Amino acid sequence: MVNKAFEPFARNAWYLAAWSEELEGSPVGRTIMNEPIVFFRDANGRPAALEDRCCHRGAPLSQGRVVESGIECGYHGLIFDGYGICVEIPGTNKVPPQTMVRSYPLVERQEFIWIWMGDPGQADENMVIDFPFHDQPDKWPHRKDMFLIKSNYMMMIDNLMDLSHLGYVHRKTIGGNPSAHVAAEMEVTPTETGVRFVRWMLDAPSPPSYVKAANLRGNVDRWWDLEYVVPCSVLQWTGAINTGKGAKENQGQPGFHTRVFHSATPETENTFHYFWSISNGFRTDEPKATEELYKEIYPTFLEDKEIMEVQQARLELDPERELVVIPADKALTHARRAIRRLIDGDPAEQSSAAE
Amino acid sequence: MVNKAFEPFARNAWYLAAWSEELEGSPVGRTIMNEPIVFFRDANGRPAALEDRCCHRGAPLSQGRVVESGIECGYHGLIFDGYGICVEIPGTNKVPPQTMVRSYPLVERQEFIWIWMGDPGQADENMVIDFPFHDQPDKWPHRKDMFLIKSNYMMMIDNLMDLSHLGYVHRKTIGGNPSAHVAAEMEVTPTETGVRFVRWMLDAPSPPSYVKAANLRGNVDRWWDLEYVVPCSVLQWTGAINTGKGAKENQGQPGFHTRVFHSATPETENTFHYFWSISNGFRTDEPKATEELYKEIYPTFLEDKEIMEVQQARLELDPERELVVIPADKALTHARRAIRRLIDGDPAEQSSAAE
Amino acid sequence: MVNKAFEPFARNAWYLAAWSEELEGSPVGRTIMNEPIVFFRDANGRPAALEDRCCHRGAPLSQGRVVESGIECGYHGLIFDGYGICVEIPGTNKVPPQTMVRSYPLVERQEFIWIWMGDPGQADENMVIDFPFHDQPDKWPHRKDMFLIKSNYMMMIDNLMDLSHLGYVHRKTIGGNPSAHVAAEMEVTPTETGVRFVRWMLDAPSPPSYVKAANLRGNVDRWWDLEYVVPCSVLQWTGAINTGKGAKENQGQPGFHTRVFHSATPETENTFHYFWSISNGFRTDEPKATEELYKEIYPTFLEDKEIMEVQQARLELDPERELVVIPADKALTHARRAIRRLIDGDPAEQSSAAE
Repeated sequence: MVNKAFEPFARNAWYLAAWSEELEGSPVGRTIMNEPIVFFRDANGRPAALEDRCCHRGAPLSQGRVVESGIECGYHGLIFDGYGICVEIPGTNKVPPQTMVRSYPLVERQEFIWIWMGDPGQADENMVIDFPFHDQPDKWPHRKDMFLIKSNYMMMIDNLMDLSHLGYVHRKTIGGNPSAHVAAEMEVTPTETGVRFVRWMLDAPSPPSYVKAANLRGNVDRWWDLEYVVPCSVLQWTGAINTGKGAKENQGQPGFHTRVFHSATPETENTFHYFWSISNGFRTDEPKATEELYKEIYPTFLEDKEIMEVQQARLELDPERELVVIPADKALTHARRAIRRLIDGDPAEQSSAAE
Repeated sequence: MVNKAFEPFARNAWYLAAWSEELEGSPVGRTIMNEPIVFFRDANGRPAALEDRCCHRGAPLSQGRVVESGIECGYHGLIFDGYGICVEIPGTNKVPPQTMVRSYPLVERQEFIWIWMGDPGQADENMVIDFPFHDQPDKWPHRKDMFLIKSNYMMMIDNLMDLSHLGYVHRKTIGGNPSAHVAAEMEVTPTETGVRFVRWMLDAPSPPSYVKAANLRGNVDRWWDLEYVVPCSVLQWTGAINTGKGAKENQGQPGFHTRVFHSATPETENTFHYFWSISNGFRTDEPKATEELYKEIYPTFLEDKEIMEVQQARLELDPERELVVIPADKALTHARRAIRRLIDGDPAEQSSAAE
Repeated sequence: MVNKAFEPFARNAWYLAAWSEELEGSPVGRTIMNEPIVFFRDANGRPAALEDRCCHRGAPLSQGRVVESGIECGYHGLIFDGYGICVEIPGTNKVPPQTMVRSYPLVERQEFIWIWMGDPGQADENMVIDFPFHDQPDKWPHRKDMFLIKSNYMMMIDNLMDLSHLGYVHRKTIGGNPSAHVAAEMEVTPTETGVRFVRWMLDAPSPPSYVKAANLRGNVDRWWDLEYVVPCSVLQWTGAINTGKGAKENQGQPGFHTRVFHSATPETENTFHYFWSISNGFRTDEPKATEELYKEIYPTFLEDKEIMEVQQARLELDPERELVVIPADKALTHARRAIRRLIDGDPAEQSSAAE
């Protein structure tokens, strides 16, 4: 495998398209893999995803409105149901059979709306990522957000697979001592669907932010546990427990715990929707704790956005140019192998590559 | 004919370039069919249109100023007369014969400046559209405006050829009951230079806006009479007369009358200048009536601009993709045939297509 | 030689990259000839220029910071010295030999940082332009500035080689009587590295701006002395001395004197960095005089920026189209021949043209 920065799309996979709560009101227009899509919830509450282009004169359906029988085009009033079938053309009783728009398989689960961008016949709900923490708001209260980032989606995976960036990109926010991070014990394990790495920092002083957030004082055993799951999600568990309490053997005991969900859904080759949620596993009955954690982590996402976008601009000047691999790239390299396996094994992608 | 959205330019035709009153002051720079053009009125009051690029170092002449003998380039002072001939080069008495810029045939009439974009030898003043209402400010007081729209010019023709859009695009402004519109009697007549359609709605309550504008109360016979004239103008007569007064036989009698002129002059393949004027045929001695009508209709042009621009964005993703025809497209289909005849019969267009 | 507007880059030449004082603080990112470059001063005060793209993951080094041993990448902390050699990779003691970025030859002299964009083996310091006035702040106090102009760099040379533009572009600022300028005596002399022209206007009233700036009253002998030096600098000496004092024979005597330095460093084919400095040779012990002169000339550079940018927009529509030569273009024509000689004799350019 040549080490380059940008990857094409793996079509036969589930992508995070929206948060469930986004579909409560007006239709939502969003481009995924260069395809404009309209998302809405039909009269039965079922979420639907249609091509965001009326087959009549091309107007975006997302400019229309949701009505009893589906979504009504805002130009001439054609109505399409959640399967993309035209159910009404004003002024006529005959609806020609070709009056339809493409629909996409969706799965709604755990506050996520997942979309299948490839061959619908291969859409398997069992392949959807499980993130049970969204189902346990009492145990894991959380907040969600989304940014548009102007870079190839794999820049986000790179970013998270090498936490040595914390001391540089986030120097002014969460920062941390770069040499301590680099020296920490780190275990990288390839998985069937990606790669997982765990880094432990044992018997170290509790960082000020943990003291403040969870009142965790004294020395602690800290960990970063991140799992990349193809095509573009990362499940993160970060936490700390007082030293001497057997953190490694009983990691779930009270302490400082956060669960972060990251997903990089490609908008185009060079842009992606960065969905993220943050859950706090401490002071779980205080909404203020969730809010404080969100406010602390929010600026770090902006720092990542900035570095990924300037990185993208440089790489675009010569996308084929080889990059230099350093030891810190171990997890990143496994992640790249995993996405490459998915892309190469993806019939939709292969046929388009053969064109 | 394949039903697609975008049309190329028909060169051998008159296009609305400017309102007469625009040429009273500084030179006006405007791009038409990708050609930058400067418009000005010479010392004799004659309007002129020249290529907006000095032949010396390429500066736009529209950045210069109108002087006694023509238009003076704002970079080094060369002066060109209304025919594009250089009549002065500072510092020399010799003007080389190639020192000239292209000029365009113009016709000024009825407050319009029409330009011929094709072979000057074929420019025939008799082909200019007649719109006598601008000549009768007492009988048809009016206001004019112009917008730049980011879509192919034929999107405007489509828009006007299918008034079923009124109930959707203009739901929040002039709106109207979509089903009443769709049910109204409609006659479509192809013409030599386009298509005309007339829609009558008989014995219906006078709409609130007509009551307010013209104090027209009770039931009325209403009509929409729109004529498309190639390449890109639409002449509209909308009105209403109290039921029982023989509206159809004597349509010119007092009532609610408006004349709207629309013209979509291509700036580029994907943008056009939308010129429009609105004349009121009621309360003609009250300037306030004209102003009120203008203020009521103005927002509807912004609504059309918005829908045409998002439509354009969608269609550009795959301009060759076929669109679905519905019964409401009858006038639109005749309009498309008419512009296609003009384009196909246009030698300038044919030779460029053969390149 | 065909008379066209745009020229490609001459690579084997020195270009003005920055003012010395710009490198006192944070690293400076600047694109030259499409190549993103980071400029910084190392711990020894030596200026350095490196490719502004980390070889690891492509992040711009200009987003990092200057540290003791070089410049530190702001993403993962790699450090490169002023020669582009990686001297530190966090977390490892081994630095693979390919871990390096391109460095560029620089010369720092007379408040300029000059960069060599071609074959480093041909970089000859003796070819750097000499502008001794920056070394004499007592005799020639000065101010400097820089603009980004959206045009091909040769538009600036054209602009300065034909001062007949003063009466048109600068009508509202320094302006002047166009016919007087055109009538003035003008001597054009090709040089080995460009062209020089001198224009004398003898026994003319001192212009109001000279009276105000240098208290120079009565009739004066005025001159404009401009020398173009390939690839893209112009050295200007403008001044006036009271008539009868033998200005031509002893031009250095007290009077109104200004030295202007202009350099147009290509950012891309269609944009350039306009570096300029202005020195006053009168009231040299009054900082206020320098400030006043700067404030007077500053708006004229904005006027030049505007005309060069609209000119560029027009010329881009058809860059191959021939321009018409007029008598005022004599110096411009010699300048174009000089840059063409440099480009044609430039092996780097020839090989890229042959690709």
